[in-house]
Amino acid sequence: MTDRAKIMPPAQGEPWLLTPGPLTTSLAVKQAMLRDWGSWDSDFRAMTAELRSRLLSMLGAGGADYDCVPVQGSGTYVVEAMLGSLVPRDGKTLVLANGAYGQRTRRTLDCLGRAHLLLDKGDYLPPRGAEVAAILAGDPDITHVAVVHCETSSGILNPIGEIAEAVEAAGRRLLIDSMSAFGALPVEPAHVRFDALVSSANKCIEGVPGFGFVLARRDVLDGARGNSQSLSLDLHDQWAHMETTGQWRFTPPTHTVAAFLQALRAHEAEGGVAGRGARYARNRDVLVAGMRQLGFETLLDDRWLSPIIVTFFCPDDPAFAFDRFYDLMKAKGFIIYPGKLTVVDSFRIGCIGQMDEGVMTQVIAAAGDALRDMGVTDARPPAAALIERARLAA
Amino acid sequence: MTDRAKIMPPAQGEPWLLTPGPLTTSLAVKQAMLRDWGSWDSDFRAMTAELRSRLLSMLGAGGADYDCVPVQGSGTYVVEAMLGSLVPRDGKTLVLANGAYGQRTRRTLDCLGRAHLLLDKGDYLPPRGAEVAAILAGDPDITHVAVVHCETSSGILNPIGEIAEAVEAAGRRLLIDSMSAFGALPVEPAHVRFDALVSSANKCIEGVPGFGFVLARRDVLDGARGNSQSLSLDLHDQWAHMETTGQWRFTPPTHTVAAFLQALRAHEAEGGVAGRGARYARNRDVLVAGMRQLGFETLLDDRWLSPIIVTFFCPDDPAFAFDRFYDLMKAKGFIIYPGKLTVVDSFRIGCIGQMDEGVMTQVIAAAGDALRDMGVTDARPPAAALIERARLAA
Ligand SMILES: Cc1ncc(COP(=O)(O)O)c(C=O)c1O
Ligand SMILES: Cc1ncc(COP(=O)(O)O)c(C=O)c1O
Repeated sequence: MTDRAKIMPPAQGEPWLLTPGPLTTSLAVKQAMLRDWGSWDSDFRAMTAELRSRLLSMLGAGGADYDCVPVQGSGTYVVEAMLGSLVPRDGKTLVLANGAYGQRTRRTLDCLGRAHLLLDKGDYLPPRGAEVAAILAGDPDITHVAVVHCETSSGILNPIGEIAEAVEAAGRRLLIDSMSAFGALPVEPAHVRFDALVSSANKCIEGVPGFGFVLARRDVLDGARGNSQSLSLDLHDQWAHMETTGQWRFTPPTHTVAAFLQALRAHEAEGGVAGRGARYARNRDVLVAGMRQLGFETLLDDRWLSPIIVTFFCPDDPAFAFDRFYDLMKAKGFIIYPGKLTVVDSFRIGCIGQMDEGVMTQVIAAAGDALRDMGVTDARPPAAALIERARLAA
Repeated sequence: MTDRAKIMPPAQGEPWLLTPGPLTTSLAVKQAMLRDWGSWDSDFRAMTAELRSRLLSMLGAGGADYDCVPVQGSGTYVVEAMLGSLVPRDGKTLVLANGAYGQRTRRTLDCLGRAHLLLDKGDYLPPRGAEVAAILAGDPDITHVAVVHCETSSGILNPIGEIAEAVEAAGRRLLIDSMSAFGALPVEPAHVRFDALVSSANKCIEGVPGFGFVLARRDVLDGARGNSQSLSLDLHDQWAHMETTGQWRFTPPTHTVAAFLQALRAHEAEGGVAGRGARYARNRDVLVAGMRQLGFETLLDDRWLSPIIVTFFCPDDPAFAFDRFYDLMKAKGFIIYPGKLTVVDSFRIGCIGQMDEGVMTQVIAAAGDALRDMGVTDARPPAAALIERARLAA
């Protein structure tokens, strides 16, 4: 259960981050960074062990065959470590893309010089299980499928359940970029078959940025020796070293790790994945209802809206300018996020971090005030945006 | 000038870290992490710009042709980013190794599949300018030379001045791993010609771990497009993106960056590289003199001792056991570091971090007490160790 009293506003003068990580973290998480840890010392090794086992436990009962490998760097690094280490050099990956992060997966494979095929659904249309099944049936060379769980660039929640079924039925392996979803949306091997997923410290677990982690089948990690053409991003090596020594191969971001442990304990206290997901869903519901009342429209139909981040179309009213809106919202204490669509103007508001419905209600009041400050009388999007959305619904 | 009154003991119950990073940082550095920053926001972009220009200014007057590229991850990542991005795919690197970090450079090139030649000087013998000149004269295929500035595994300060001269005279390019030295020992292009050097946040600048940085010639960064076979560790791409947008390509470790800015300001207040280096040199002098008085012997002759970290031989006395010594020192408030020599038993004590001579005097008292607790009456090393050292002096 969410203890709503626990949501504390940030310190004086510090805005709420309505962004999909870095996000607003609790003071307790940040205070855990007020000490220095020796990375070789047994105290820190115990912290690493607790971190790994807490993350593993989020996989539920089906997680017994999995292990957790934390990796220094940003989320993109961890996606690259997963692709470069778990796909054999002669493997071929089907990349399901419907936004910036799927495109980044493809670009990563390009850099690595690994064979791949792209299913490009544009800015936000969801890749469907049947499409994946058809592609796999037609191309026996494909060994792996890479999917983005919540495509943060639009906020769409991709249907990983039906995709996992198609991949399993075809006898291929699934790799999930669950960066912005893990910890708030269930991904349990008992229901969704996958070889590995990645996420990072500064998303739904509500830690601060500095590392990410892979949850992967132990036999897959074990079989990955020699696949990587990078020392730093070699997941097999990081895992094997950690198993033997209890330590990270290279200097870990000790303070970020300490903060993350505090965040993991708070996550458990909130009711784990279910509790965290429920708070975020309420945040989204309050946000979307309120913004719609102001005249804003969401890019996505309710069915595809994730509880992570929501894309709104920019109003058609010529008095609206995103930069001005951003600055006004910031002056009112809220940092929002620019859009990433190629076709129409949009912006995004995150639902994750140390925030609850009360904060979301303030966000809506601030957005209404900002519209008035700008002299925007009608927040509805241009017709083109609605045509775009109709395409999606079709 | 060092303001000695500014060195504050860590919080109650927290040991001093006599380790070469993570190290003991000031409370002000850690307190800079008590707020969340939006990575896209202009406030954070200004922090990134200040960080880059402060680091660049440490290169002195000859730094005008250089630029600074911060890179997420640990120091090893940044070494890999430098090698994989700045050496062309058909380049060949001469690796000068006299310890674990030189060996890691070689291993990184192995993973990357890049041609290299290893000059292996064993555990701690310094690579000399004349040797480098001879190798370069005999192998025209060599395009780059990679050297470790302070080889932290023994603490030796390698003679990068004479090496840089040999490399320049032969018309090749020098890449420096100055991880544990930059910020305390001068590396100025006006005196030492190099294409790039790397260091990280948690060494002599006294920040917390989470990212590193490259200082490289701007023409070299500009010419590095397409060299990298990694997206995450592509230095050209990171640099070009930062130049255009003022942002990191992927989520930066915002809190670590804020801490580092505070550390950079304190570094300037202490008198920059000269002031920082002077404090560390005093730390080393007090440490070495005191430990010698207890009967300990250093691996290296005074001439090669860096002000960063010092290797001591383990006593020959059978009553001495490193694990016990470590635990006793920890109980007295000091975390020391195990040795990394392959031939004889040793341990290391770092001189870097928020510590001064007063702390070093306490370290020596604690070491003396620990010897007594263990019943060690003679701290001298075995004869084999002294023979080993004689080899070095020869
Ligand atoms: C789905 C997804 N994948 C990958 C990333 C990249 O993570 P990072 O910015 O930490 O490199 C993000 C970041 O928001 C993301 O949301
Ligand atoms: C000289 C040198 N190079 C490389 C490294 C590797 O840095 P990291 O442990 O941050 O990966 C270190 C770490 O101490 C070092 O001292």
